Amino acid sequence: MSLQKSWVESANSADTDFPLNNLPYGVFSSGGGEARCGVAIGDMILDATAAEAAGLLTMRGGPLLNAGVWNPVMAAGADVWADLRAQLTALLSHGATAQAALAETLVAQADVDMLMPMQVTEYTDFYAGRQHAENMGAILRGSAELPANWLHIPIGYNGRASSVVVSGTPIHRPNGQSKAPDAALPSFGPSKRLDIELEMGAIVGTPSPMGTPITVDQADDMIFGYVLLNDWSARDIQGWEYQPLGPFQGKAFGTSISPWIVTAAALAPFRTPTPQREHALLPYLASTTDGLFDIELSVLMQPAGAATATKLTTTNYSRMYYSAAEQLCHHAVGGCGMRTGDLLGSGTISGPSKSEYGSLMELSWAGREPFTLDTGETRTFIEDGDTLTLRGAAIADTYRIGFGDCAGTILPAAPMPHNAQDKG
Amino acid sequence: MSLQKSWVESANSADTDFPLNNLPYGVFSSGGGEARCGVAIGDMILDATAAEAAGLLTMRGGPLLNAGVWNPVMAAGADVWADLRAQLTALLSHGATAQAALAETLVAQADVDMLMPMQVTEYTDFYAGRQHAENMGAILRGSAELPANWLHIPIGYNGRASSVVVSGTPIHRPNGQSKAPDAALPSFGPSKRLDIELEMGAIVGTPSPMGTPITVDQADDMIFGYVLLNDWSARDIQGWEYQPLGPFQGKAFGTSISPWIVTAAALAPFRTPTPQREHALLPYLASTTDGLFDIELSVLMQPAGAATATKLTTTNYSRMYYSAAEQLCHHAVGGCGMRTGDLLGSGTISGPSKSEYGSLMELSWAGREPFTLDTGETRTFIEDGDTLTLRGAAIADTYRIGFGDCAGTILPAAPMPHNAQDKG
Repeated sequence: MSLQKSWVESANSADTDFPLNNLPYGVFSSGGGEARCGVAIGDMILDATAAEAAGLLTMRGGPLLNAGVWNPVMAAGADVWADLRAQLTALLSHGATAQAALAETLVAQADVDMLMPMQVTEYTDFYAGRQHAENMGAILRGSAELPANWLHIPIGYNGRASSVVVSGTPIHRPNGQSKAPDAALPSFGPSKRLDIELEMGAIVGTPSPMGTPITVDQADDMIFGYVLLNDWSARDIQGWEYQPLGPFQGKAFGTSISPWIVTAAALAPFRTPTPQREHALLPYLASTTDGLFDIELSVLMQPAGAATATKLTTTNYSRMYYSAAEQLCHHAVGGCGMRTGDLLGSGTISGPSKSEYGSLMELSWAGREPFTLDTGETRTFIEDGDTLTLRGAAIADTYRIGFGDCAGTILPAAPMPHNAQDKG
Repeated sequence: MSLQKSWVESANSADTDFPLNNLPYGVFSSGGGEARCGVAIGDMILDATAAEAAGLLTMRGGPLLNAGVWNPVMAAGADVWADLRAQLTALLSHGATAQAALAETLVAQADVDMLMPMQVTEYTDFYAGRQHAENMGAILRGSAELPANWLHIPIGYNGRASSVVVSGTPIHRPNGQSKAPDAALPSFGPSKRLDIELEMGAIVGTPSPMGTPITVDQADDMIFGYVLLNDWSARDIQGWEYQPLGPFQGKAFGTSISPWIVTAAALAPFRTPTPQREHALLPYLASTTDGLFDIELSVLMQPAGAATATKLTTTNYSRMYYSAAEQLCHHAVGGCGMRTGDLLGSGTISGPSKSEYGSLMELSWAGREPFTLDTGETRTFIEDGDTLTLRGAAIADTYRIGFGDCAGTILPAAPMPHNAQDKG
């Protein structure tokens, strides 16, 4: 767990998210040009598409780096992942002989736009944070008692892949139906309780066929990497719609991910076990590998025009009750086919104290306890123009493995089309 | 509403599902060969891929018929849909001059395998049948009272696109967690309450961008066509998992669709209005077009080895409370982007009498009232080897617009992988 030195000097700084130990995968565009696969190194990006075209990277079964997304590499499997990481490590190491040729394929992160690193096939969101589940129970149902199934099932629901966007994409406040507790009938309009959910996202690389259950260990091997994930949530829309079939439009207007996929390989030194179980899990959820990761996470909020962002919360991915591998195993256990590009949200990550809560619903206790920003303004939920940013890094003594910011700014609700405005 | 005559004689029979008035779109393979786009006509299929290659069909912006799925046509929009239908009608009409050339592109339906007619992008399932919702309330919660939101929201949840398969694909009984009412803890194993749901599926052709609400009329124009849809359901798994975030593994092991997509154009003469509203819908759900269709539907069950199938139920799509266009409008209202190939299940279609119930849960009243098959056997839920078949057709005086069978046979549960068997 010590810093590996690179000839890219900025990658040797103790505070970069992107040392040689990391090598996360993203997709970028220069000046509106084509989407290109890139690897972050310090404050630069190695243009992997160019490096492959120049013969500096050779992919088994390739070319795999010219699709403008990482899906072909993700589908190629663990041997190709290991081989690519070994090639990149060698090419970017201090003293590498290819330095001169490779230097021509470096671009500054500051000069490019980041795009979606992959095509999301399907998106599933889980509910694996115990503190969050208890808080939501206390807020919504007056009791912190967990649902009866919670300690047995990694509870999840299918989300909407078309709503997943890369960090930096602005999100319109959603319109929708809601009903105030004292109202007889629902009304329609922009959400008044717009929230975030601080999550990690796990990305399925290799697929599993329909009708084929998998073990947790097999699931762990299928996971290509992780991103930060903000599951934007409209609490008022969700509250009115979610019985009996779960969240729908309250969760379908945007889900932001970090631009960089940090590989399972880069995170390997930071594995941590799932917690002691209150009830033993059923045997199909057994595993031999620590499935969580020690990743420090924070949420920042910055109103429009504010000079600085206020840190709202700090927590850690290791606090979850279920790992992504357990979630993926459960996802496939009934025979559901899992495919390259499937994205699994961890569920909201909250710690035991208020400074560790991963949603505004919890931070403002359903709006009853406004919090104060560094600017002096107060908030309960998100206002138009606010920018919310997730940050995360696994931190070793001499280096850190970061994801880059996962940020989004909330725009006013989109105008409704002709003749469809709520008059009621 | 009279039969249009074709030079394909079998298409002029009063009892064919596929007269010239229909012209549904499917994908077929001969002898394990490549997937080809086809159009059903009588007991034959016009090989549309071959017809386009031969210059007998000319697609604007084409070729569009060589992808092995109909998605390129679906994405091309209403003008292309109308143009293709007009070309096919002219080519296949009685007395058409191209008859000799076209006859070489006909294959017998009996000689080919039907494949998925499209790539399913995302799958959403709704809950728009009032009788079904009331029955499920009575069965599960002891009261037929509708959920508070039911008369206001076309309730839906996101399903799993990877589980959608074409008619004829066998389905493994799912393994999963369930908990008996009198058990302290859940157990794991094959579902004991395996069920069907009789539904229609609406297929999105033209997309709507993220952040852009649409009207019901716009949604109606986006719908390319309809299929029969069986949303196989494991009631015991679903019952244990679905609180608080909705169905997940109880619905993820298989969803079968008919091989033929019947176009909205072919169904146009059969449009029927949605019912009188108990509460006026919110204005965003207003429309100017009748959104339901008069389609007669039935369910048949055939045990392994039985000579004949028993008809379990007969009902009609026109019984739904919400149309597919209303569901699609609601799906997009918060800003959710809708894409070519999105599949929307209507929800289970049940009529007011027991002979019109669209699920075994209702037909056997949660297993309390076994029903008897023509073979003399009784059933409450599905047993291994049973084949369930949905049939549907819009019926005019001199012709019918059918979908072909939507059938599936249940196989025993797949073996669990090493070391993951439930011992409890």
